[in-house]
Order: sequence, then C-alpha cells, then structure tokens
Amino acid sequence: MQAHVPGAGGTALQAADNCSQPRLECSNPRAPSQAFGCSIFPSSTATAARRASAVLQWEERGDVTCPLLFIQLNQLLSTPAGLEWREMARWIKFEEKVEDSGERWSAPHVPALPLHSLFQLRTCLQKGTMLLDLDATSFKEIIDKALSEQPEEAEMQPALRERLAALLLLQPQHQPTKSLLQLLAELGLSPCQGKAKGRSEPRTQVSKMPLKEQLRNRFKKKVPPGAEAAHVAVGEVEFLEKPFTAFIRLRHGVSLGSLAEISLPSRFLFILLGPHGVKTYHEVGRAMATLLTDELFQRVARQAEHREDLMAGIEAFLDELIVLPPGKWDPGARIPPPSHLPAPRRRTTVNPLDQQPHGNGDMTAAGDRASPGHARSGEELERTGRLFGGLLRDIRRKAPWYGSDFSDALHPQCLSAVLYIYLATVTNAITFGGMLGDATSNMQGVLESFLGTAFAGFIFCLFSGQPLTILSSTGPVLVFERLLFSFSQDHSLDYLEFRLWIGLWVAFFGVVLVATEASHLVRYFTRFTEEGFCALISLIFIYDSLKKMLSLADAFPINWQYRLDNVTSYSCTCNLSSPGHSSAGNDTSLPSPLATWQPPATPAGLSRTQCLDQGGHLLGTSCQYVPDVTLVSFLLFGGTFLLCTALKRFRSSRYFPVGVRKLVSDFAAILAILASCAVDAVLGLETPKLLVPSELKPTNPARGWIVFPFGANPWWVCLLSAVPAVLVTILIFMDQQITAVILNRREYKLQKGAGFHLDLLCVSLLMVVTSVTGLPWYVSATVISLAHMESLRKESATSAPGEHPEFLGIREQRLTGLAVFILMGVSVFMAPVLKHIPMPVLYGVFLHMGVTALNSIQLTDRVRLLLMPAKHQPDLAYLRQVPLRRVHLFTVIQLLCLALLWLLKSTVAAIIFPVMLLALVGIRKGLERIFSPHDLSWLDGPLPAPGAAGTHARERPEQGSRAEECEPMHRPGPQINLSVN
Amino acid sequence: MQAHVPGAGGTALQAADNCSQPRLECSNPRAPSQAFGCSIFPSSTATAARRASAVLQWEERGDVTCPLLFIQLNQLLSTPAGLEWREMARWIKFEEKVEDSGERWSAPHVPALPLHSLFQLRTCLQKGTMLLDLDATSFKEIIDKALSEQPEEAEMQPALRERLAALLLLQPQHQPTKSLLQLLAELGLSPCQGKAKGRSEPRTQVSKMPLKEQLRNRFKKKVPPGAEAAHVAVGEVEFLEKPFTAFIRLRHGVSLGSLAEISLPSRFLFILLGPHGVKTYHEVGRAMATLLTDELFQRVARQAEHREDLMAGIEAFLDELIVLPPGKWDPGARIPPPSHLPAPRRRTTVNPLDQQPHGNGDMTAAGDRASPGHARSGEELERTGRLFGGLLRDIRRKAPWYGSDFSDALHPQCLSAVLYIYLATVTNAITFGGMLGDATSNMQGVLESFLGTAFAGFIFCLFSGQPLTILSSTGPVLVFERLLFSFSQDHSLDYLEFRLWIGLWVAFFGVVLVATEASHLVRYFTRFTEEGFCALISLIFIYDSLKKMLSLADAFPINWQYRLDNVTSYSCTCNLSSPGHSSAGNDTSLPSPLATWQPPATPAGLSRTQCLDQGGHLLGTSCQYVPDVTLVSFLLFGGTFLLCTALKRFRSSRYFPVGVRKLVSDFAAILAILASCAVDAVLGLETPKLLVPSELKPTNPARGWIVFPFGANPWWVCLLSAVPAVLVTILIFMDQQITAVILNRREYKLQKGAGFHLDLLCVSLLMVVTSVTGLPWYVSATVISLAHMESLRKESATSAPGEHPEFLGIREQRLTGLAVFILMGVSVFMAPVLKHIPMPVLYGVFLHMGVTALNSIQLTDRVRLLLMPAKHQPDLAYLRQVPLRRVHLFTVIQLLCLALLWLLKSTVAAIIFPVMLLALVGIRKGLERIFSPHDLSWLDGPLPAPGAAGTHARERPEQGSRAEECEPMHRPGPQINLSVN
Repeated sequence: MQAHVPGAGGTALQAADNCSQPRLECSNPRAPSQAFGCSIFPSSTATAARRASAVLQWEERGDVTCPLLFIQLNQLLSTPAGLEWREMARWIKFEEKVEDSGERWSAPHVPALPLHSLFQLRTCLQKGTMLLDLDATSFKEIIDKALSEQPEEAEMQPALRERLAALLLLQPQHQPTKSLLQLLAELGLSPCQGKAKGRSEPRTQVSKMPLKEQLRNRFKKKVPPGAEAAHVAVGEVEFLEKPFTAFIRLRHGVSLGSLAEISLPSRFLFILLGPHGVKTYHEVGRAMATLLTDELFQRVARQAEHREDLMAGIEAFLDELIVLPPGKWDPGARIPPPSHLPAPRRRTTVNPLDQQPHGNGDMTAAGDRASPGHARSGEELERTGRLFGGLLRDIRRKAPWYGSDFSDALHPQCLSAVLYIYLATVTNAITFGGMLGDATSNMQGVLESFLGTAFAGFIFCLFSGQPLTILSSTGPVLVFERLLFSFSQDHSLDYLEFRLWIGLWVAFFGVVLVATEASHLVRYFTRFTEEGFCALISLIFIYDSLKKMLSLADAFPINWQYRLDNVTSYSCTCNLSSPGHSSAGNDTSLPSPLATWQPPATPAGLSRTQCLDQGGHLLGTSCQYVPDVTLVSFLLFGGTFLLCTALKRFRSSRYFPVGVRKLVSDFAAILAILASCAVDAVLGLETPKLLVPSELKPTNPARGWIVFPFGANPWWVCLLSAVPAVLVTILIFMDQQITAVILNRREYKLQKGAGFHLDLLCVSLLMVVTSVTGLPWYVSATVISLAHMESLRKESATSAPGEHPEFLGIREQRLTGLAVFILMGVSVFMAPVLKHIPMPVLYGVFLHMGVTALNSIQLTDRVRLLLMPAKHQPDLAYLRQVPLRRVHLFTVIQLLCLALLWLLKSTVAAIIFPVMLLALVGIRKGLERIFSPHDLSWLDGPLPAPGAAGTHARERPEQGSRAEECEPMHRPGPQINLSVN
Repeated sequence: MQAHVPGAGGTALQAADNCSQPRLECSNPRAPSQAFGCSIFPSSTATAARRASAVLQWEERGDVTCPLLFIQLNQLLSTPAGLEWREMARWIKFEEKVEDSGERWSAPHVPALPLHSLFQLRTCLQKGTMLLDLDATSFKEIIDKALSEQPEEAEMQPALRERLAALLLLQPQHQPTKSLLQLLAELGLSPCQGKAKGRSEPRTQVSKMPLKEQLRNRFKKKVPPGAEAAHVAVGEVEFLEKPFTAFIRLRHGVSLGSLAEISLPSRFLFILLGPHGVKTYHEVGRAMATLLTDELFQRVARQAEHREDLMAGIEAFLDELIVLPPGKWDPGARIPPPSHLPAPRRRTTVNPLDQQPHGNGDMTAAGDRASPGHARSGEELERTGRLFGGLLRDIRRKAPWYGSDFSDALHPQCLSAVLYIYLATVTNAITFGGMLGDATSNMQGVLESFLGTAFAGFIFCLFSGQPLTILSSTGPVLVFERLLFSFSQDHSLDYLEFRLWIGLWVAFFGVVLVATEASHLVRYFTRFTEEGFCALISLIFIYDSLKKMLSLADAFPINWQYRLDNVTSYSCTCNLSSPGHSSAGNDTSLPSPLATWQPPATPAGLSRTQCLDQGGHLLGTSCQYVPDVTLVSFLLFGGTFLLCTALKRFRSSRYFPVGVRKLVSDFAAILAILASCAVDAVLGLETPKLLVPSELKPTNPARGWIVFPFGANPWWVCLLSAVPAVLVTILIFMDQQITAVILNRREYKLQKGAGFHLDLLCVSLLMVVTSVTGLPWYVSATVISLAHMESLRKESATSAPGEHPEFLGIREQRLTGLAVFILMGVSVFMAPVLKHIPMPVLYGVFLHMGVTALNSIQLTDRVRLLLMPAKHQPDLAYLRQVPLRRVHLFTVIQLLCLALLWLLKSTVAAIIFPVMLLALVGIRKGLERIFSPHDLSWLDGPLPAPGAAGTHARERPEQGSRAEECEPMHRPGPQINLSVN
C-alpha cells in the first residue's frame, strides 16, 4: 500500500507494485504496458487519488510538444581550495559524463541507473521541498524561496540556511566541449603543466551574465533553438545533519546566467544536499536527470499541480523500466545509444506473446505516422477511371513545384552531385555506346550515345514528373538492340528503318498505357520483382566491367613466355613485301639514354602505323605483344575499385571530424578517379584512354542524322513492327516503372510527389525522337538515379549527442539533372581533358557501383545467411519471425529466378526476356501457395487483392519501413538500393 | 516496511527499499554495494529476522563452487491439438529464446527483464508452495507432492488437482539445436510443408527415458559435465481460478527423463499456472530463470532452509539491479553478452566516486586472482645473490618439465604451427641472408644464414629455458655487422677474425651477465621500452619489404616510354665487337605461334648469357627493359598481403562454423602463399624466385668453414675487440631480454615458467660457435616467437552460449621449434620445391607480419587517437582515466623517441644504437617528472623502486591485464604484440 501524502512519515520506499494495476487499466496513453499491470494475484485496493491525478495529467496533455530540455548535473566536490561545484554529466537525449580524468566528455550513452537510486529519488521528492510554478528572476531569489519554504519538520536554522545559500550560489565549474584544434593548441602551450586550471576562478558567485566560455562553447550547436535548461545539483555538506532536497519548477523559463554550461532559459531545478558519508547523491542526481529526459515524465513535470502528480509520473516511469540482472552486465560498461528508439506511445513490453502478429490494424496505425507530405502519395497510383486522368493529375500535382525545382538547387551539395553523376553518366554513355557500336556495326556508336543521352536526359529533366530520375541506355534495351540488328541482317531488312517503326509503335503503345492509367499496375511490383531486376542489372554490370578488363588482355597481349635470357631474340620489323628490305642494323645503332629516347628516324625505321599504311606487315616475335599495359590497367582497375570503396566507407570511420569524412565520402568516386589518373599520368604508359568523339558526324558514315520511314523495307514491315514493339513496350514499361517505384519509396520522404504517368509519357515521346534520329532508346537507369538521390540527401544539422542525424529527405530539384546533361552535351567538345582518363579507372568505378548496388539489396543479405551458421546470423527482424528454412527457401527461389533470367539474357531466347520480367510478377503470385501470408509479409510486401485498388499501394512501402523500424540494426536513413543499368 | 510471513495477506509488492540498509551494512560479500544501501533519509526499522537469514546464508556459503545450472522455460500454449508445453527459452549464463517463428534459437543475450515481473515473481514465491529438499525420484512424484502440499488458503479440489497434474505431465516440445547440414537437409526434403511438425507426437506423458532427440541434440556440447537442470514451467490454464505456483528444490539431482531439452539431473523446478487473461506469466518465468542464473542467488537457493532465506536472496538481487530508462532503449533490442563480466565479488555500483583510484591495494587484489600456475613467475627474476644462482634456479625449474615438453606436442595444432613458423623462418633467413651477403661481400650469405639458423635454433630449442622462443637474425645485429665490415675494410682488418674475437668477448660478457644475474634488470623494461623497440623493428620490416619490392623495379626495369606504334624500333642484339656481325634478318624469319614459341636456334641468335659469356655486349633499345615482371610482382605482393590479411580476419567473420574459420585463419599465411604461387605458376612469367642454396659450401669461396683466431690481424686486435663487444653485448642483451619479457607475460598463462638466465647463457654460448664457424649471430626474434605462441593457443572447448571461449594457455613444448629447425636444415636439400616460391609473395607475407605487429601495440592505438575527434574515440580504460592532452603528449614523446631511433639506425651514428635502446629506459624514468604516477600507471607500467626487487616485476604484467579487464572493448585472450626482427 502506498500513501502519497506529502511529507508522510514512513521511510519505506515502496516500489511500483501490482497495486498500480487499476491505474494502468485506465485509458492512459501508455496502454501497451497495461498487460503488464495486470497482476497474477488480484489486487485489493488502490488509491483513488493517484488514479485521478494520473488521468488528469494524461488528458490535459494533448499533443503539445514540449521544448527540449538540456539537463546539467553539478556536484559539490571538495578541492584544496574548498568546496566547488563541478559539472559531472549532462543530458539531452542520452547521458554524457565527465570522465574521471576530469577533462573529457564520455561518448553519449544510455543512462543505466541503479534501481536503488530511483527509489531514493522518490523518497526525496516525497519529503523534500517542492515549488511548482515559482516566479523568480534570479538564481538567488530561487534559492532564497526554496530555503524558506521547507516542510515544517525539516525546517532549519537561519544560520544554516545562509551558509547553504552561499554554497549554492557558488559559480560551478563547467566542462566546455573543445575542438581538436583547441586541444592541440593547449597541448602545445602547456606541455609541462600537471593539470590545466585555466578556468574561471573558483569561489565566485554565479554571475548574472553568461560567461565567455559559455558563449564560446561548441556544445551550443547541439542544442536546438527553443530548448530549456534543467539543473540538478547534488553534494555532501558536512555541516548538514539532515538532507535538504528541493524540486523547483519555474513558471517561465528564466536565464540564470552562468549556472549552466550554455546559456539557456532554465525551467527545472533539483537540489539534493545531505550529510557526509552517503555516496549515493550522485546516483540520485543522475536518476533525476534521467527522469527529466523521459518525454512522458517531462510532460507530467511541466503540468503537475501537486506533489502527487509528480509521484504518479515516477510510478508510470517505474512501470516501464527494463532491468539488467547483476553479474550479467558490467555496470562500468556503457550502452551506446540504439539506432532506433521506441516512440513514446509505442513503448511496449518485451512480452513476445503480446506483440500482435502484424495485420492490417497495425498497418493503418503505421500509415497514420507518415509525415503530412506523404498523405498524397497513395493517390499517385489511384485510378481516376478517365482517359489521361492520371496524367492530368500528375501535371496538376507537379506544376506548383516547378519554380521551387530550380530554387531548391542552390546548395553546394548539388555541385558534388552534378560532378559525380556526370562522371557516372559519361562512363555509362561510353560503355553502352561502345557496346551498341559493337552490336550494330556502329549504326549507333559512342557519339550517338553522347548526343542521345544529353538530349533525352535534358528533355526528361525539364518535363518529367520525377526529375531525380537519370535516363540512360540500359542492359535490357542493349540486349534487344543486338537481337534486332542480327534479325535485320538475317532477313535483309534496313535496321534503322525497321527500328524507327518499332520505336513509333512503342511510343504509341506507351501513350495508350498512359491514357489507360496502366501505371497503377506497378502495385504488383513487390520487393521480389524489384530485387530480381536490381540483382540482374547489378550482375550485368559487374560482369561487364570484368569482361571489359579481360578484353584488355586481348587488346594488349602479354608475352607470358618472355624469358630475360632470350632478350636478343625478340624484335618486330616491318616487312614491305620485299624480302631483305628491312635491315635491323640501323635499329641497334643508336642506343640512346633512357630519358631522352626518340624513335630512330632512319628511312627503314617505319613505325607500326606507317608500315601498315604502306601495305607492309609486321614480322617478328614481339609484334603480337604489348608489355606492361595490361598489368598497369589491372593495377589501376583494382586500385580505383579499392580506393573508391575505402573512401566511401571512410564516412563511418572514427577519424577526423564528421564534416571532413562526409566530404571525402561524397566525392569518393571523383577522388578515386583523380588519384588513379594522376598515377597513370606519372607512370606515363600508353594505357587505353577514354575516347570522346570530337566531331559531330554519325559514327557510321553510311547513315545520316534522320531516318526516313519508307523506302528501304517492304511496306508491310511497318505493320509487322508492332509485334516486336509489344516486347519492347513491356521492357520499357518494366524498366521505367520499377525504377520509378524504387525512387518514389516512402522512406525517401519525397515531398513533391511522383509522376508515374507523366514520366512514362516523356519516355514514350522521346522514343519518337530517338527513333527518327537513329539515337539509342532511353529509360530510367536505376543505379545512377539512386546514386543521384543519395548524393542529394538532406540530414538534420543539429542532433542531440548520441542521436543519429535525422534523414530529412532529398533535395528535389531539376537543376542537377539539367546540369549533368548540359555537361554531357558539352563533353563532345571536352575531349582534350577527358581523354586523359584511362578506361580501366572507369571500369573500376563501375565495378564499385555494381558491387554497392548488389550489396544494398536484401537478397544479398539473405544469400549471405545461407553461408552462416544460425547462431552467428545477425538479429534481423524477419529472422525472428520467419523460420530459417523458409527464408532459405525464398532465397533459393529468388536465386533460381535470377539464374533463369541470366540464362535467358545470354541465349537466343533473349527476345522473350521482357516477358520473363513480367513473369516474375506471376512467380511472386505463385509463391503465395508455398509461403504463408505471414512469412511473405516479412520477406516481401503483400500483393494487392485484385479488387482493392489504391489503398494497397500505400501499404507496401510502409511494410518496408516498418520492418526497418523493428530491426535493431537497421541502416541509418533510407536504404538505398543501388542497381546498375 | 516489509513483512516476510509466508502467505501473508497484503497484495502490495514492496520493492527493495531503503529499509534494506541495515542488512546491507552487515558484513556481507556484496560489500561494494553497501555504499548504495546507505540511504539518504535514515531508516527507522528493519526486520531482524531477514537480516539474520541473510547473514546465515552468506556465512555458510564458503567457497564451494556450485554446479552450473541449465535452465529451461516451458510455456503452455494452446494449439489446435489442445494445450501443449513448448520450450520458449533457455539459460546457462545468458538467455537464448526461441524466436517467434518457433524454429530458431536467438543469439545469446543479456536477459533484460521488466521490473514488474521481478516483483510479481517475489509475490509468487511469497505466497506459493515451496518445497525445499524434496526427496523424489520421478516427475510424477514431484508433481503429486507439490499439488498436495499447497498452503491452506490456496488448497484446491481433488478433481482440479488431477487435471492440473495431467497437464503438467504432458511431454514438452523441445527446440533442438540443429546444424546447418540438418537444416539444409530438411529444406531439401520438405520444401513445400507449411511448418515442419516432425517432432515427438504431442499429448504423451513425460517419458522416464531420454528421447532420441535429446541424445542427438548438439546443444549438449555446450553444457559442461556436472551441470544440473532447472525447469521453469508457466502458462495460462482456463480451468484455474486462482494461480498455482510452486518452487521446488530436490534434495539430490534427479534425472527427469524427457522433461528437459537435454538429459541432466534436475535440481530446481518452478511452476506458475494461472487463470486466463494475464499476459505476464512468460515474463515471470523469465525472471525466475534469470534469478537462477545469478551465481549468488543460486547459492542462496541451494542453501535456503526457509522461504525467508529465498526472499532475502531476491532482495539482494534487487539491490544490485541496473535499470534502463524507458524510451531510451528499445525493449525488443537484445544486448549482446559483454566481453567481460564482473566477478561476483567485484560487482560494484556505477558510482564513479566509489571507484578507488587504483593503488597498490588494488594491485595485490588483482595479483590474488592469478591462477596458481603463476605464483612462481615473480620468483624467476628475483636475485639469489649467489654466482649463477639464477641460472641454477632456472635449470631446477625447467628440468621437471623436460619430458612433458615433448609429450605435450601431440596435437594437430602443432603441425599448423610448424608449417607457419617454418615458412616465416625460411623467409627471414633468406631475407637476412641476402642482406648480410650484401653487407659483407658474401662473407655471410644465404647458405650461412640457413645453416646458422638451423643449428642455433635447434640447439636453443633443445636446451633453452623458454623453448617457444625462435632464434633468428635481427635488424639491430644486421646494422652492426654492416658497420663492422666497413670498419674492417677501411682499416684493412680481416673481418671474420675480428668478428670472431668480438663474438668471444660477447660470449664472455654474456656469461658474466648470467653469473651476476643481470637479467633481473628487465624489470626496468616497461611498456614504453617494449613498444619503442617493437615499433622500431616492425617499421624496419615494413620498410624493408617495400624497399625490396621497389628494388625489383630496378632489377626488372619497365620501359614507361614504350609506345605501341614504335614496336618496330624495339630490339636488342648481341654485339660481339665485330660490327655488322649481328643480322636481325634471321630473327624475324620465324614468327611462330604464341603457345609453341621457341627461341630461334640460328647461329647468330645468341642468348643473353651466351652473348655476355662470349665477351659480347648487348645493343638495342629494349635491352635494359624487362616487360611485365615488375608489375606481376607487385600484383603478387599486393595480392598476398591482402589475401593474408583477409584470411586472418576471416576468423571474426560470421560465415561458416567456427572450426572452419579457425582453420582458415590459422593457415592464413600458408594458404595465401600457396594461392599466390599457383597464380604465379599459371601465369608462367619469369618472376624472381626464392633462391635456396643447393650446395654445401661457403658463399664466398675466399673463406672456409672455420675461422682461425690468429694470423690475419695484429695481436692487439683481440684485446681491442672488447670495445665493440660491449656494444654488441648491450644489443644482444636488450634484444634477447625484451623479447623474453614479452613472451613470458602473465597474460599468456604460461605454466612451465621462464628461464631468463638460461636463455641468455644459451645465446652467449651459441655466439662462440657461430663466431668460430663464421655464421651469423642469433638472438630471439620477437615477431616470429610471438607468431609461434599465437599459433599454439589453447582455448576452452565448451563455453556457455554467449560466453567467450576461455584462453587456457599456450602449448608449451619443444617439439614444434625443433621440427621447424630440422626442416630448416633439410631445406638446403629442398631447393627443387622451394624454388617455385616467388620472392614478392614472401615480401607480401612479411609486410603482413610487420603491419600486424605494428597494429597490435598500444602506441598505434594512441597514434590513431591523434586523428580522432574526442567524441569519436573508443571507450578505452586509459581514456576514461587520463586527460586526453596527457595521452597525446605521451604518444608524441614516444613517436619522437621512435624517430630518433630510426635516424640513429640510418646514419653513421648507428654504432651507438644499442646504447640508445638502453637510453629508452632512462627517458622512461624522465617521464616521471612530466607525468603524474596516476597517469603513468594507466599509460605504462610503474618502474620498480631501486630498492624493492622481485615483487614489482610481478606488478607490471598485472597492470596490463587489469587495464584490459576494465576495457569494455578489450580483445579476447591475451593481446599478442607481434613485432618484427
């Protein structure tokens, strides 16, 4: 039984017991813990008063957000100079303590308290002075009032009171946060001092004005504007015989000068001074501070009108405590702040039986939590039922943002994004240009690739619904082009004209799809489909970059049989078909010094090109071989890949301040490229370099800039083209929309909404132009678009120590995209600069992108699980919920699908590849027969029911973000699934 | 106030309050928490009865170790087939729970409990049935007795009792631990089943015999022999109106058949069944289990005679609880087991003011904890005061172990160690052999190095005090030899004879040092000295391997100016001084296919060697260059280094079972070498290979196998030699003893003791032999010796889930060392095999060893701290205690010393380098003027006071291990400081 009469007699601290059950059964917002309150043995009585006060508070609370509290714990220490207040710890969300060395802040950690201190604190609050809504303007006034309003039985003599007041008014020694530079400066200045004592001189009174060190304190940046301060002061005083405790809440925030480390309006004060010999004051002070960091208790403390209200707040706090058994945890160890905190009203018990198997009820609750900016996102894919209804809605949605799409780009981050994406796009254009050239006898080559990318990308960024998307040639389209060209060759059709008609049909089908609002079908693209697609294109990318590197070994063959001893037998001469014409005697006549060596200009010393130009051929044992180039290329390739990966990871290292790390990580690709180019330039070997076209004419001289629709092929070809066009349409639709779905995921917190219909229209119309001009076809490139978004992340600048910076969203604007494609167009004229970039370096960056993309999908995580014994597996949310066998089965099925896709892509059946992509959706449907809905909901989003449209599209992304919330080890910020087109 | 009358009325659960203070003030072993019990407000009353019972228990306790308890929590679940007992969690030290998916064990974690459940458990124990020392032989008997002996007011009807008994006797469903193979097999067999139900059929009674699945259970391995079981059974039963709880302790461990997951004698049972609607049974069951895992509570539970004793045990448990505030910690998150647990009697409060600044009192306490095998280690360096007293004592200490030094080697681990160390030693011998050959005009070459290493190492391993030591040439000795040779050249002295005399003098001085027990001076070698020395030789090693690689670029120069277009202008011909003799026409006549290319056998096509042999010289633009070899070498070098590092790290990855990982990690160097050799062999390029001498004759034909003491030099040289001999003696003494101190550190838990004097004697006597035969001088090689020890680590096989395997010691024996040196000697004849190993591969391994060694010393950690902002620094013990400025200052001083040593080593002053090493001890002494003893004790061990001998030598290693204990993030097992000679 508990009595909550202020200052009541009994000394027993009565803990949160099962008397508290009735109170918890009331409708209070801590409802999840209600189950806990239900006791095994029926409780007999409960104090009605307490219940009432609790209800009162919870109802009054409303949804006002309290200002953040900065809490400082000052402790009285005896120094040679006398007693001194010293800052011992501080809290915003987590605890930071001054280390025993006295000159260092600990890392922020979860404040673990001894249970005892909480009970002692409760006694203190029960018995001590309590002043709620005190009106005071200075610290002195507060102290005077607190000392004079003690409960009767604790009343002290005036002399004692004065001594106490004088003690309390002493200036506390703060522990300012210093930068590394300040620290090193101090080190340099005073290397021989024992302990630096350069602080404000002790034994002065708290000043009314903030001190210089307060203003200079770097910690200020961590405290958001509007925050208030709470002060906890504890200590032993030898002249006291009875403890003196006071809890004071000021009516208004009052700035108390130099009392706190930083100058903030103060709201709460807690003072605990007691006689010698008791060591727990510090812990009680920590308990008070920790209580105040609790959001719910803080609300109670702000609104409490009586002591009992505050006591009820403590009870509620005690109710939810988690305890760690002694002996299983080292009390000296500090628990780092968890990456994810439970929201106040989601605090639940750890009872697993209590957790609802997540059903729709849970989902809608999750939906409620979405920020207002997202309320609209479900609507993007709802059917209007009218022709072009979705398109019109897209335009209406995006039009108001058009201005801000340019003004929002004014941030230095955008510059880095432009450079990074530009390089990725150029590399992509060159690679795909080269491969398209291979595939189509240069009907489309690097120049066409450059022009097409620049043009299509620019137009798309200007008019699309989602301007963060980057258009590019993609693997699937390349596969199709290759097949189309060989089909044309086999049947003596004109490739470009055939392709023109296909393009026109695709554009037509595309417009039909837009008109019929077919984009709402993307609701059927679950994680399963996305991951299959992403993994495929990531693999294509990794495979291609490695293949390109190996092909270098063919282009620059190494003489593995080279033997130093036979050096005299290696040579290569030009044979101009007249035997005996070449005399090597001249070659050996001028063994000039290494550095100034010049090719001998003797008449017979024709260079390789000259020789071949004059119709000669090369004879000799070293003609086929090119020394060193391949190996240097491999070194550059590996070096770039490793450097890029290392620099990217540098962000999560411990070295250097966060700003520097972020900068390095953001520019990782560029730094790696620059470093590798520098190495290449220093070595000076003739490595294969980036070939940028410098003249504006079609790569294949047999074609012009405009493709004519008739003439070369029979008339019926233009009708027949509709058949392959269906395949291309499926391909383009899948490729475009999967990327769009990934880009518009809820976890990216996009504010300006998506434009699925508008994007598809843009792509379709661009098809017309690129078909007519014979340029490559373009769709959204998943990897580069996601890299684009990743490089435009916004994060909160101030965050409490220990809190992860909050992901605020993406800088949604059109300017970075436009700049990238303008640069792309200009690149045709930037050949003199770009030609110094070796190709292996670009392949290294590509490999990095492919590997990053592959690593970011859950499929990869699950493949890794296959290799891990169960007990070493990480604690992932879906592993807790789904039996391991089922997880493995799901992974194996996904891998089989991936293998099938890969096979299809590589064989003659490649033409039905787009259909196979569609089949993924069907396979996913079939999985419902193998897996229970519960398992699928954890491994993959649920498929929408055929009837219910619209609402489900909202659910799936929620699913992902909720699963992440449950994951104790989830990544900070949204999980970017990079993938490579 | 608390009443501990069994079955007392009141429902309030009263928490550990400050009434408990008087009990805590009694002399109980939880004394550290006493400070906590002292309450701020004086307590009024305390129940004398409780105090008495607590004292009783603590006094009875003694130091008997309780058997380990395996605790299983079974919960009653309703399934379609009716009620069923299901295993939900288990404990040995930490909690493992069955995941919600029902088919998986979670990772072991610290059991975090809701505070409430503990209070509810207390009520349960207070009110329920309690049978202590029950005599029963079967589960049925236990249940019957428990049901019949209920307290009166809870008495139930016989019908109900029978139903309850039937329910309790149902066979529980266990959750066996499956291997990955079993799991995959199941996956293959039943891919389409919803949930596998292949367990023992439900609704049978608990069988008396263990089930098959119990016997097959892989978890058995984790439970040490002698363990007992405790059962916790909780659940909701709808036909119950009042809860039924029982706590039963059996008088003897009784095997209860299939009740538990594994068959063990059972000791405790706790049953809690109650009416529907209460969700907390599971949590109360967890609380009970967690209580039983607590060592102190378990003792209480085993010895309790009354209910009150048990209640007092709970109170004591509650007293020490650590709580985590709600909202700052996600209750669903699991805390991984800490790497270090507080010993029961070291459990202290988190109050930092409570922690004693560590003085000598603390140290002796730490000393007490040392295992009995170490009691002797202080004595090793105590002075006896008699001539050769220390040596005699060494021999007396080691002699009894001599037999076991051979029998202890019978373990497969030793095979891996032999291979690893053999390769390291061979590489070392080759590297140093090569460098010595360079330095001394081949007076000592690779063959001498091989023979000397094999001979000296073999003898040392056979007779030394510490046979884990590996002798080798070391950097400092090399430096000295180089200086000595050039001095001899400059002054026209016979190098070998001069060296012979120096060697004899050194041996003499060495014997004098042994006789005077000078080895006790190693007490002055603190961490500062050791780290300076280790860092220096690690750096030398890294520097040398890189320098050797760069020198390859000189040996096989690359033509960076090579241009493909000029391929026709590159050639190299043999000029036999008769101009026009070489006609290149023949060279170009046979452009044979790549694969079968053979050097043309035309008369004029002389090979390089033939040409040079015939007095010709090479003319041409490609003669100076060797294509590809250097680059392939660099690829092999980098590849070996990365592969070795990655394989070594594989041990701490999550993939594959621990056994596989350990195997791969143990053989990392060999696997890396084999892989690189395979790559090299496949490529087939003429990379520089390991040159093993195949003939037994001195490298320099000018010398024989025996060096004569007189003849070549003036007579006074043999006296003059004493001067350089002093320097060499210092060098050898420092080099030998620093290594010996590191090897014999307390944290390696060596059982057979050290032999500082004996080792020095061996080294000195070997000096005589190697000087006379003109072989290199040998001392202990720190890196290789430590790698040797590391590869012979013993770890406990069984450890409770979540516990780190305990480091048990090193396999101390002589056989691995002997085998290594026998192989070394045989290597002279193994040239055909060894000659396939490319040198760059060996350099890669060396680089890995150097980097590993450098990474393992604290100096490196502190250098890293220089680059880290304070808030990102890891939570190291010394950072908590010493101001950062002081830590940085210490680091900077150490770095300056290191730089000075490096400079000395590289310049002409190198001859006084050994003196400089000695100076480190002096500098360390000087640091005491700059740093406070407190700071130094954290950053470095204390220096012994000049008077007190012996005892302090024991302190220093303790210092290190204690600091590690305080470190929450310390490495498992002893920290091996590798360093490279």
